Amino acid sequence: MALQLDVVLTKEKKEKPDFTQLGFGQHFTDHMFIMDYSAEKGWYDPRIVPYAPVTLDPAAMVFHYGQAVFEGLKAYRTKDNRILLFRPEKNMQRLNTSNERISIPPVDEAFLLDALQKLIEVDQEWVPSAPGTSLYIRPFVFSTEPYLGVRASHSYKLLIILSPVGAYYGDGMKPVKIHVENKYVRAVRGGTGNAKTAGNYAASLKAQNEAKDLGYEQVLWLDGVEGKYIEEVGAMNVFFKVNGEIWTPALNGSILDGVTRNSVLQLLRHWGLPVYEKRISMEELYEAYTRGELEEVFGTGTAAVISPVGELSWNGNQLRIHEQQVGELTMKLYETLTGIQYGEVEDPFGWTVQVN
Amino acid sequence: MALQLDVVLTKEKKEKPDFTQLGFGQHFTDHMFIMDYSAEKGWYDPRIVPYAPVTLDPAAMVFHYGQAVFEGLKAYRTKDNRILLFRPEKNMQRLNTSNERISIPPVDEAFLLDALQKLIEVDQEWVPSAPGTSLYIRPFVFSTEPYLGVRASHSYKLLIILSPVGAYYGDGMKPVKIHVENKYVRAVRGGTGNAKTAGNYAASLKAQNEAKDLGYEQVLWLDGVEGKYIEEVGAMNVFFKVNGEIWTPALNGSILDGVTRNSVLQLLRHWGLPVYEKRISMEELYEAYTRGELEEVFGTGTAAVISPVGELSWNGNQLRIHEQQVGELTMKLYETLTGIQYGEVEDPFGWTVQVN
Repeated sequence: MALQLDVVLTKEKKEKPDFTQLGFGQHFTDHMFIMDYSAEKGWYDPRIVPYAPVTLDPAAMVFHYGQAVFEGLKAYRTKDNRILLFRPEKNMQRLNTSNERISIPPVDEAFLLDALQKLIEVDQEWVPSAPGTSLYIRPFVFSTEPYLGVRASHSYKLLIILSPVGAYYGDGMKPVKIHVENKYVRAVRGGTGNAKTAGNYAASLKAQNEAKDLGYEQVLWLDGVEGKYIEEVGAMNVFFKVNGEIWTPALNGSILDGVTRNSVLQLLRHWGLPVYEKRISMEELYEAYTRGELEEVFGTGTAAVISPVGELSWNGNQLRIHEQQVGELTMKLYETLTGIQYGEVEDPFGWTVQVN
Repeated sequence: MALQLDVVLTKEKKEKPDFTQLGFGQHFTDHMFIMDYSAEKGWYDPRIVPYAPVTLDPAAMVFHYGQAVFEGLKAYRTKDNRILLFRPEKNMQRLNTSNERISIPPVDEAFLLDALQKLIEVDQEWVPSAPGTSLYIRPFVFSTEPYLGVRASHSYKLLIILSPVGAYYGDGMKPVKIHVENKYVRAVRGGTGNAKTAGNYAASLKAQNEAKDLGYEQVLWLDGVEGKYIEEVGAMNVFFKVNGEIWTPALNGSILDGVTRNSVLQLLRHWGLPVYEKRISMEELYEAYTRGELEEVFGTGTAAVISPVGELSWNGNQLRIHEQQVGELTMKLYETLTGIQYGEVEDPFGWTVQVN
C-alpha cells in the first residue's frame, strides 16, 4: 500500500531567530516530518506536523541499545530565490545503508525524498538567503519499543527536522590544526564505521575533547587494526595533494562514504587530475612531507563542504601544510562545489534538485 | 551541596502482571528514579516519581550522537522475605567508567546507591518471590540537549527503572550453541568495548541475527585487531575449563569488566582452583578440544548468572563441549552464586547488601 503523506500546519508560527546570527543546529523550523514503524504495519502514518517534542517510555530501546542512525544534508537558496538540494538521493541511500548495519528496517527512499521536499516547501521561509547560509536537514531514525532484552526493536520513529544555519566560514576560510589520534579508535573492519550510527559519534567525543585540550581543532583517525593507515578527519573525509596527485583513503568498510567526498572525486576526475583512492599510511604521508611534496590537505563534509588543514601533529612531528594558508586546489573545490550548490556555477553532473 | 531525594508516590498503582509469566524486561514497576544534569547546576533534582514517559526535543542529542550508557543488576527476595542486592557498588562504579568513556559527567555513586535502595523499598511488592525470579534494575543515562553540533551534550537525564523478571532457566539449564563470529567485530582496542554504552549493543545486533539464522543462540566475539583472540560471548563474559585449569580472557580494554565475571574469579580462587586471566586464541582452544581437554565452557552475566555452552562453531568446525550437558563446575558456580544472591548460601565475601 502506497504511503499517503498527511500535512497538519501549525496554528502559531515561531518567531524567527536573527538570520545573521544563526550558528549551527540551534534553531528549528515550524514543522517536522515524522513516520512510525511497527512490525505489523511496516512504516506507517507519514505526516508533516508542527515541530514538537517526542514522548517515549523510559524503557524505549534507543536509550539502552542505541539503535539510531541519521543523515545530514542542506537546502540552499539561490540568488533568484529558488531552493536547491544537493544530491539528496545519496543521503537517502546511505540512510538505508546505515539502517541495514544496525538492523533497522529500510525506508522507501523515493517517498522520503518527496516528503522532505514537501516539508521544505512548507517551511520555505526558513531557508536563509545571506551568503553561505543554508537550511540544514536532519533525517534520523531511532528505536522506540519499551523492552530491555537485547535484540532489534520492533518499533521505530523516523523524523526529519530542519535548522537554518549560518555561514561555516563567517570569518573567512581558515586552515585547522589536526591531532593525529594514536590512542583512541573510531571504527574497525567488521564494525560500524561506514554507517552513520549514533554510537560512532558518542565513541569519538573523548578523543575530540583531548585533542581540543592539546590545542587542536579535530582529530585524524587511524585504522583500528594497525593504527597506521589514515581513515577520516573528525567527522569528515580527508584528501591529500601530494606532488600533483590527489589521494584519499579508499572506502574499506570503516570509512564513511561521504557525499562531499564522492562529489570531490568526480570533480577532480572531471578536471583530468590524477586521483587515487588507496590505503595511505601516516608514515608515507610524513615521508612525502619531508620531501616537500605534501602540498595541500583538506577535509570534506556537508557542514564545511571543504575544510583546509594547516597542520598535522603526529607522534611529536608537526607537519605544516602550504604555509598554513588555503591551497589553490582546496579553494577551487570549495568555490566550485558551493557554486553548484547555490546555483551559481554550471552543474554538469545534475547534482542539484530544485524544491518546487 | 548535598543532593536531597524527593519522593512523589503514585496515586494509582498499576495492576500487577502474572508473576508466573514475567519474561524479561517487559513489565515495569509503579515508580522510577530520575535526576537531571545541566552544565550550570551539575546533577540536580533527584526524585522518585510515578513511572512515566520522558519527553524530549527531537533535536535531543541522544537521538543523534548516542551518548547513552546503562547498567544492569538485580534485587532478590529471600525465603525469609528480605530483599538483597548483589554487589551494587560495582555497577555504580562501572556506570562512571562508562560515563567517562563517552564524556558524560560522573555521578555520585554512594548517593545513587542510596536512591536505588529507596526506590526498591517504595516498589518492594514488585520483587517477585517464585524460585529464580528477581527484580531487574536498569540505571541509565542519556544526553538531552537540543543541539546538532557534534560535541558532548551540556544536559543529561539519569533514570533507574525496575522490572520484575522470570526465572532465566524456567525449563531447566540448557547448554547453548554459539557461533564464533569471524565477520563482524564488537569492539577494538582504543574503542568503547569496556564501557556499557548503547552503541556497543546496536553494533552487535546484526551478527546476533545472522547467527540466529544459522541456528545459533549467541555469537562469540573475537578481537578486532587480529580476529584470533576470544573476547566475549553475546553480552556475557566467557570462561573455559581446560584440563583442570580455568581460563578467561584478560581485561584488555575491549572486554566488559563483568560483575559476575569478577565474582566467578573470586569464587574459583577461593576454592583453590587454578585460574588464568589471559589472552586465549580460538586456535589454542581448538587444539585443546582436539586433545580432549576442553572440559567446560560457560558465559557469565547478570541475566543468566551462568550460561553453559554446549557447542562452539568455528570456521566449519563443531566443538561439542561436555557432551552438550551442563558441566559440574558450571553447575557448582551457578548454584553457589545464585545461593549467595538469594541468601541461601553463606556469603564469605560480603557481596550482598540488604534493602531496608
